[in-house]
Amino acid sequence: MNLAKQSRASEPVEGHAQNSPMVRLRPPWLIYFGDVEDVGHAKTGLGLIQWRREFCAGQMRASGCHVDGGIPDMGIGEAVAAGVNSLVIGVAPAGGSIPPTWVSDLVRAARAGIDIVSGMHARLSDFPEIVAAARESGARLIDVRTPPRNIPVGSGERRSGKRLLTVGTDCAVGKKYTALAVEKEMRARGWNADFRATGQTGIMIAGQGVAIDSVIADFISGAAEMLSPAAAPDHWDVIEGQGSLSHPSFAGVSLGLLHGAQPDALVLCHDPSRKFLLGMEGSGSFPILPLAQSIEQCLGLARRVNVNARFVGVSVNTSRVSPEERSRLYEEIARETGLPVADPIREGVKAIVDRIAAEFR
Amino acid sequence: MNLAKQSRASEPVEGHAQNSPMVRLRPPWLIYFGDVEDVGHAKTGLGLIQWRREFCAGQMRASGCHVDGGIPDMGIGEAVAAGVNSLVIGVAPAGGSIPPTWVSDLVRAARAGIDIVSGMHARLSDFPEIVAAARESGARLIDVRTPPRNIPVGSGERRSGKRLLTVGTDCAVGKKYTALAVEKEMRARGWNADFRATGQTGIMIAGQGVAIDSVIADFISGAAEMLSPAAAPDHWDVIEGQGSLSHPSFAGVSLGLLHGAQPDALVLCHDPSRKFLLGMEGSGSFPILPLAQSIEQCLGLARRVNVNARFVGVSVNTSRVSPEERSRLYEEIARETGLPVADPIREGVKAIVDRIAAEFR
Repeated sequence: MNLAKQSRASEPVEGHAQNSPMVRLRPPWLIYFGDVEDVGHAKTGLGLIQWRREFCAGQMRASGCHVDGGIPDMGIGEAVAAGVNSLVIGVAPAGGSIPPTWVSDLVRAARAGIDIVSGMHARLSDFPEIVAAARESGARLIDVRTPPRNIPVGSGERRSGKRLLTVGTDCAVGKKYTALAVEKEMRARGWNADFRATGQTGIMIAGQGVAIDSVIADFISGAAEMLSPAAAPDHWDVIEGQGSLSHPSFAGVSLGLLHGAQPDALVLCHDPSRKFLLGMEGSGSFPILPLAQSIEQCLGLARRVNVNARFVGVSVNTSRVSPEERSRLYEEIARETGLPVADPIREGVKAIVDRIAAEFR
Repeated sequence: MNLAKQSRASEPVEGHAQNSPMVRLRPPWLIYFGDVEDVGHAKTGLGLIQWRREFCAGQMRASGCHVDGGIPDMGIGEAVAAGVNSLVIGVAPAGGSIPPTWVSDLVRAARAGIDIVSGMHARLSDFPEIVAAARESGARLIDVRTPPRNIPVGSGERRSGKRLLTVGTDCAVGKKYTALAVEKEMRARGWNADFRATGQTGIMIAGQGVAIDSVIADFISGAAEMLSPAAAPDHWDVIEGQGSLSHPSFAGVSLGLLHGAQPDALVLCHDPSRKFLLGMEGSGSFPILPLAQSIEQCLGLARRVNVNARFVGVSVNTSRVSPEERSRLYEEIARETGLPVADPIREGVKAIVDRIAAEFR
């Protein structure tokens, strides 16, 4: 424990030095799909185009690419002419490595002064050709999984402004999507709201953020505090959750994020088709907790840092639920939790933001 | 979240490569006190002598040193003759840096093939003279705050053997001391027990361990699982706790450690003189939770990974409690919690280990 509250450097961001402690991407972006064949592996790039179309100047696809984001195709030369500032790798091949076939494209972009942005496990700085090209032009190599330097230890001090955090009954239940949908709905109503990213895809979509699961353990809550600093009283930070308090692999990350976020409002994200934690069906040891129990556990911990923390909705993924089942499911969840229920992909999160409006404005 | 359960390298241990993923120190040790004036800054070295006298060949003190561990004084030459394998820096000066006056001693030891062990923030590898000397002789430079490579993501799978974890109502309430006292009492009874260290001083005392607060956030519970692997059914791992579930700076570390440790038995450590979390008295925002509430919260989370988790005692620091007050305090805590109460410094932890014997053997 670092009781002295000293800052401690985490691993440095490679390439050109950054002044800000947080990752920040410079738009406009060129979305790089390489030769990806499978839409499932292109979720990052397609998510960027879905949520931040205004920052996407074009896409770059090699022969053999079977994915189309529906935006203009460009080579490096055209991208330079279009004023592109960042090439964002929009593909995550299995294994998280950078295939040799991409390297020459990345070298050409870096040499042209375009920042290269990657969310993969492999580090851009492990490719000497890319490093040399970036050094020559001053382009930045941004590995968004690499946390910023100088994250403080969390202080627990109350900050001005409002915060919403999405939490989950499991990993991969729509916490990022729900947060983005809430931000969009709040902005549509003219509210002052910002999505705050805690994972690599979210960081690319937001153009900034901290990969909270990559931070040194002593600094998780400090990173969350840094990510959602004091703001105007009517401003909402809409913070992307990570993991689950009931997940034995990642609960520490979830609790540090909860404490650092100090949420006023919480949305519980849930996939009703899951009976056990993802990837742990075999052992049968880790059933998904009942929603009311998840909520109670989370509030017990959240109120340590914000006595007014409360849930404002349940976000469900109903992609595997039949239309007849759906209304029964919504009623059941509403009865169990007393909260509005919404599938952000199907009908959006109006019901949840209505509840926030009623409780906070 | 690293759902693919890939190992990910944390920062490498500098100096000579280690085969084991865990830090392991080679006895016998020379405890280095340098020119420390203040006993408070020499706690690490004095703790090593207290808990692991059998590993301590001698102490090395410069002129101006006002601390005496009561073991033979040695220079580097005498240490070599005595078969010393590791020089352990037993001092933590304010700021955690290595003063220039020590460097020549460390260089001479490293040149003589003696491993150098440091628990300070400053890295031994940042001193080129020390690195060069170690490289020449094959000595290892061990920064115990640097976590091992290849920590796995926590699996949550049940392991054989028994585990005890000390938890706290705050930081710095005797979690390490209590765990060491429990190990000592268990061994005195002929039980098969090992202290498992999670902080730098504990690692030095145990000769191995993982600085759990220095691990990448995604791997906290995995590090705890690695630290207390499957063992014989009657073996006890006595695991040093970190932080507190109710501490807004460090609760994520505490929860990841709790989940990875899968404790059968828990001991709550408490300083009754504290009304607020250490260092947070000013704000008044973070009162120490009532013991029954701390216990209930911890069990709710612990039972996710071990349905039989239970508390077996309360360890109190009564150094600021008068003799008349003490028996009243013990009665009050026993009534509130239904658990045996002991001050490990004053009367040892026999009462707690009696309870473990009654419940588990």
